[in-house]
Amino acid sequence: MSFRLGLLNPNTDHRHTDAMAGVAHAALPAGCEVVAVTAARGPSSIESAADTAVAVGEVAAMVQAHAGLDGYLISCFGDPGLDAARELTAAPVIGIGEAAFLAAGLVSGRFAVITTLPRGIPALEDMIDARGVLRRCAGVLALDIPVADQGADHPDTTTAIVAAARRAVEERGAESLILACGGMADVARAVQDAVGVPVCDGVGFGAMLAYGLWRTGITTAKVGTYAAPERIPYTGMASPTGA
Amino acid sequence: MSFRLGLLNPNTDHRHTDAMAGVAHAALPAGCEVVAVTAARGPSSIESAADTAVAVGEVAAMVQAHAGLDGYLISCFGDPGLDAARELTAAPVIGIGEAAFLAAGLVSGRFAVITTLPRGIPALEDMIDARGVLRRCAGVLALDIPVADQGADHPDTTTAIVAAARRAVEERGAESLILACGGMADVARAVQDAVGVPVCDGVGFGAMLAYGLWRTGITTAKVGTYAAPERIPYTGMASPTGA
Amino acid sequence: MSFRLGLLNPNTDHRHTDAMAGVAHAALPAGCEVVAVTAARGPSSIESAADTAVAVGEVAAMVQAHAGLDGYLISCFGDPGLDAARELTAAPVIGIGEAAFLAAGLVSGRFAVITTLPRGIPALEDMIDARGVLRRCAGVLALDIPVADQGADHPDTTTAIVAAARRAVEERGAESLILACGGMADVARAVQDAVGVPVCDGVGFGAMLAYGLWRTGITTAKVGTYAAPERIPYTGMASPTGA
Amino acid sequence: MSFRLGLLNPNTDHRHTDAMAGVAHAALPAGCEVVAVTAARGPSSIESAADTAVAVGEVAAMVQAHAGLDGYLISCFGDPGLDAARELTAAPVIGIGEAAFLAAGLVSGRFAVITTLPRGIPALEDMIDARGVLRRCAGVLALDIPVADQGADHPDTTTAIVAAARRAVEERGAESLILACGGMADVARAVQDAVGVPVCDGVGFGAMLAYGLWRTGITTAKVGTYAAPERIPYTGMASPTGA
Amino acid sequence: MSFRLGLLNPNTDHRHTDAMAGVAHAALPAGCEVVAVTAARGPSSIESAADTAVAVGEVAAMVQAHAGLDGYLISCFGDPGLDAARELTAAPVIGIGEAAFLAAGLVSGRFAVITTLPRGIPALEDMIDARGVLRRCAGVLALDIPVADQGADHPDTTTAIVAAARRAVEERGAESLILACGGMADVARAVQDAVGVPVCDGVGFGAMLAYGLWRTGITTAKVGTYAAPERIPYTGMASPTGA
Amino acid sequence: MSFRLGLLNPNTDHRHTDAMAGVAHAALPAGCEVVAVTAARGPSSIESAADTAVAVGEVAAMVQAHAGLDGYLISCFGDPGLDAARELTAAPVIGIGEAAFLAAGLVSGRFAVITTLPRGIPALEDMIDARGVLRRCAGVLALDIPVADQGADHPDTTTAIVAAARRAVEERGAESLILACGGMADVARAVQDAVGVPVCDGVGFGAMLAYGLWRTGITTAKVGTYAAPERIPYTGMASPTGA
Repeated sequence: MSFRLGLLNPNTDHRHTDAMAGVAHAALPAGCEVVAVTAARGPSSIESAADTAVAVGEVAAMVQAHAGLDGYLISCFGDPGLDAARELTAAPVIGIGEAAFLAAGLVSGRFAVITTLPRGIPALEDMIDARGVLRRCAGVLALDIPVADQGADHPDTTTAIVAAARRAVEERGAESLILACGGMADVARAVQDAVGVPVCDGVGFGAMLAYGLWRTGITTAKVGTYAAPERIPYTGMASPTGA
Repeated sequence: MSFRLGLLNPNTDHRHTDAMAGVAHAALPAGCEVVAVTAARGPSSIESAADTAVAVGEVAAMVQAHAGLDGYLISCFGDPGLDAARELTAAPVIGIGEAAFLAAGLVSGRFAVITTLPRGIPALEDMIDARGVLRRCAGVLALDIPVADQGADHPDTTTAIVAAARRAVEERGAESLILACGGMADVARAVQDAVGVPVCDGVGFGAMLAYGLWRTGITTAKVGTYAAPERIPYTGMASPTGA
Repeated sequence: MSFRLGLLNPNTDHRHTDAMAGVAHAALPAGCEVVAVTAARGPSSIESAADTAVAVGEVAAMVQAHAGLDGYLISCFGDPGLDAARELTAAPVIGIGEAAFLAAGLVSGRFAVITTLPRGIPALEDMIDARGVLRRCAGVLALDIPVADQGADHPDTTTAIVAAARRAVEERGAESLILACGGMADVARAVQDAVGVPVCDGVGFGAMLAYGLWRTGITTAKVGTYAAPERIPYTGMASPTGA
Repeated sequence: MSFRLGLLNPNTDHRHTDAMAGVAHAALPAGCEVVAVTAARGPSSIESAADTAVAVGEVAAMVQAHAGLDGYLISCFGDPGLDAARELTAAPVIGIGEAAFLAAGLVSGRFAVITTLPRGIPALEDMIDARGVLRRCAGVLALDIPVADQGADHPDTTTAIVAAARRAVEERGAESLILACGGMADVARAVQDAVGVPVCDGVGFGAMLAYGLWRTGITTAKVGTYAAPERIPYTGMASPTGA
Repeated sequence: MSFRLGLLNPNTDHRHTDAMAGVAHAALPAGCEVVAVTAARGPSSIESAADTAVAVGEVAAMVQAHAGLDGYLISCFGDPGLDAARELTAAPVIGIGEAAFLAAGLVSGRFAVITTLPRGIPALEDMIDARGVLRRCAGVLALDIPVADQGADHPDTTTAIVAAARRAVEERGAESLILACGGMADVARAVQDAVGVPVCDGVGFGAMLAYGLWRTGITTAKVGTYAAPERIPYTGMASPTGA
Repeated sequence: MSFRLGLLNPNTDHRHTDAMAGVAHAALPAGCEVVAVTAARGPSSIESAADTAVAVGEVAAMVQAHAGLDGYLISCFGDPGLDAARELTAAPVIGIGEAAFLAAGLVSGRFAVITTLPRGIPALEDMIDARGVLRRCAGVLALDIPVADQGADHPDTTTAIVAAARRAVEERGAESLILACGGMADVARAVQDAVGVPVCDGVGFGAMLAYGLWRTGITTAKVGTYAAPERIPYTGMASPTGA
């Protein structure tokens, strides 16, 4: 019996989907399958709450369209649509943001987050605070380089990430780093080698979290918070419950 | 110069829109205008995160479709799409959930929240905690009656609200009450009269918050958290920035 | 039926009372009345806890002396006597400090506070923390200019406020500003125009909060925290309950 | 060189002053002196915020009238005027409320608070939260017996305290008890003997805290929060700074 | 290259070690190795802080004695010695307590904890609070059955766990369950089947967390909190650094 | 009846024991006795979690070996073994770390902590946060000088402490200082004189806290958190309960 992971990219950029699927596949043991899914509509990268407002609906739609997999990984750092996705399946659903925060918490006392644009810093701080670990955050640093220019194809961006990472470690006391963008997943190892502290990529570790829950038979609770949606009539679109 | 409020109903039930618009209009001083808008598609009431995942996109779309008003009121207690809406306008945007919590905080030391279904309790507690006022919450009580059966047309529901309100005051120490459903707005006064503690309706007070910010010239910040969305290419739909 | 607001100045400087009453009157819709009241005894400005220890008693006395108004606004940023005032009336009572924090929270993700003297910074931080929003505070900055030298009559002070405001936005990530002194109320608009982010004056918006609660029939709770004072015998002065 | 403690009773009931002075004197080592001071005006017991609004001014006045002592103990559980008193002297100033919380934290993992009236519960919870130890509070229980009927002269009250204490231990998991009223100080030992868990009286231990700071030469900081008051002109009364 | 996990049992009961090693081995993919280690001295089960005071030293000693493995799992719910263990290796070190809390957070909005003795409840609440997730805890319930009587060999204990689990779900709103004792690991699945909500066993999932970090190359940070111990001279025993 | 304090040094350096016993003896009133105890084995100073893992067991052993004293003072700033020690006696047990934090909280609004090595900063921040007073901490500053080089015998170290103390006051707004190392106790007064703000030494004040609890008859609770250890069989060493 092999594990099949639905890697859901909430943006519409297939190259990002493919890069993240490759990272997830490399992390999982041999024999696991990654079903890579890209949002059908919406922004090609997610930088604002307006972009996210579209993405959350797309994530819910992707889970419904790919029902029956063994686990799901929402592959955008803001974890859009996580609660809705968990309502729509009993399989484990992980967000790459939460995966990165969990990894950092397991290997270090203080972490720093490196993100794309300064405007995203307050939302990241709020996300960290909602997780209860703001005290452990040594800082959120912005590269001022948009998502669209992240990834192994942009070596200058990697240089900028390394520079920000050094500042976080030397000036802020960061002991580990989190790259707050799925598009940075494929440079995590290079940054780790350059800076000498663990770099916690949520794509690979998130895939392993879903796999670990599946291996140990821990499914998403179907009472309370993540109970299946109520049967509500919908107008102008299909209801998730068929109501 | 008169104030024009966009009352945005994130669900598709026009009767709820009309009832809430009536409450908002009655709260505002004479001469103010309420532009009532109903979501174009999605659930007829919002009970789950899956319902919300649709609503956030609709709220963003409604703000864009009704640009140029003097203030907006997102008229669903979960305040769906609030961050996105604030990015899309410099006019004040208020959620009826936050309005109700602010009112309760101004007139009492401890409040209780009365909601429709038990499944919504954790999300409400999380919302209260994110506002920093969980300590002041004497409890979240569920009626176990869905949103669709709220409002002045359902006298039995009012009876149930009054009973829950009494329990909250007598057993939990609540000093004020919050009705966590826009559909309950038109019975707030009746509950207040029956129970003898203030009932904080977010529709009427939320309309006044938007009006108060407008009167004092306090606009939504356009740097940082609520800066206008980045210009990102969209696929399969119009971008909010026209990119 | 028109709204009558008691604007209570906890210090003894009538010029400040008049300036703040003017701001409140301008904020309220036409036809509303502002009853401006100045403390009968005590400091001409409030800079220390010792000054506040006198002011809280004066605020309680002012509410009792001006019973029967439709709402009250305690017009000193530290909100002295707020709890006592709420016990002494069922009409809404607002503090200009809380009003400013609420406004900032409605229009921005991160705010900064500009105050008069450095010694007041810890008390302001404690006040922000007690409200549950310390995480949203980008910083408290002191001008090192006493309250007595604030207001439109002191253009140099306005220049200093603008300079501090710019630092808060550019270096600390503030998205909105709060002027932590009632005496700064009449320069709020000038600072907003100069710096380009919303400046949240608690005098004008606080007047509107009291008005909004009054319009929507939300009164101060008379059970628990703000119940009328117990009937306790007093020595050497009149009891608030006539006991 | 012997230690002289100013025991400041913020209410006007001399019997309470005397009872508390006796407890403090018994706690301090031989040779220490207790200067017992009763508020010159105001309520004979402090039950409401309106009562407190008078008491804070009286505490400040008592410290000024009895300058030069080696330490001060504000002997009302709400610690009224503590900040002002600390501004007005470099000698240590302790509140009996904070003393009780500190004692409980040193000898137990979970404490309960027994107070006089239910209306005081929210303010006590807020006080505990401001101290950062709300999580360690197993509950605040009200006797529904006013302050005026506390003390060794009212044996029925002691019976009620013991009953409430037993409930706190058996039903709430309290490991120690705090009597939230200076007037209960002289029955603390009797309650402790009856219930079998430590009862933390803030009067005796508070006297020892002031003494301990004095013995180790730790004075109140005179920069920042507790710096001496600014020189502000006062109207209708003497300024604390002689300005 | 296969993964070798050091399963460290901080108590001296070999049967518990074997049972937990079996659970970990079953969770890990084929080909992984579990090196089961039992504390050399100390209590046969850990119920008190005095027991823990011995266990933390034993955990540090076990890590040093079994250097060179690919990951470590501290198999006592209180995670004794976790910080010390992380200092002593760059391989991932997981505690079964933290593993269980992480699992519960990934599959539910509210969890409850079932522990052995009531005396352990405050320490568990403190542990949950230090993790920042106390708000998500629906309750800590004690069986009042000691650790020594846990496990598949004690069917009566399983019955008691199921009864407590039902109460947690039905009366407290728990959506998932955590069994706060390594000795309960082998009955987790039976409880889950009986109660119908996920039961988060930290042994199996903890093994997978260590494996997941190893698979993704995320090592323990060697700067700051978990840097290798300083070279300090030791008396009466070997220093961990050979100093 | 005179007070006998067990001063327990968790490290093996007798000179530190003697210096701290001298400070404690000087703080206590005449006639009190200090029984100075040094750890039997382990590190000569405590810098890491691995060092602490040994110390906690030693503290428990020292309390058992010196049963029957009137109070205990754990004389290492990290308060190692505090919970275990409290389980093992009904006499008050104080840690010098908690004593210093309590003193600072009684005499100032904001404190700073000066420690030996940067690696210890996160653990100190966590300790402060667990106490609920992180907001009141103006900063934790490291001298980068190990514990072994602290104390009156190292005048250069005193110079470095004074320099760090000045920075904390002038740049961070610290109003009082905490020296986070028992070895610094004998220079506290010199630093206080040089910098002009209170320096809160936990050794002297901690001795007075134990004495104050003893004077007022407040013993360690013997239910719940600090109940005597369970009777668990031990292997390879004596059980604390004789089981």
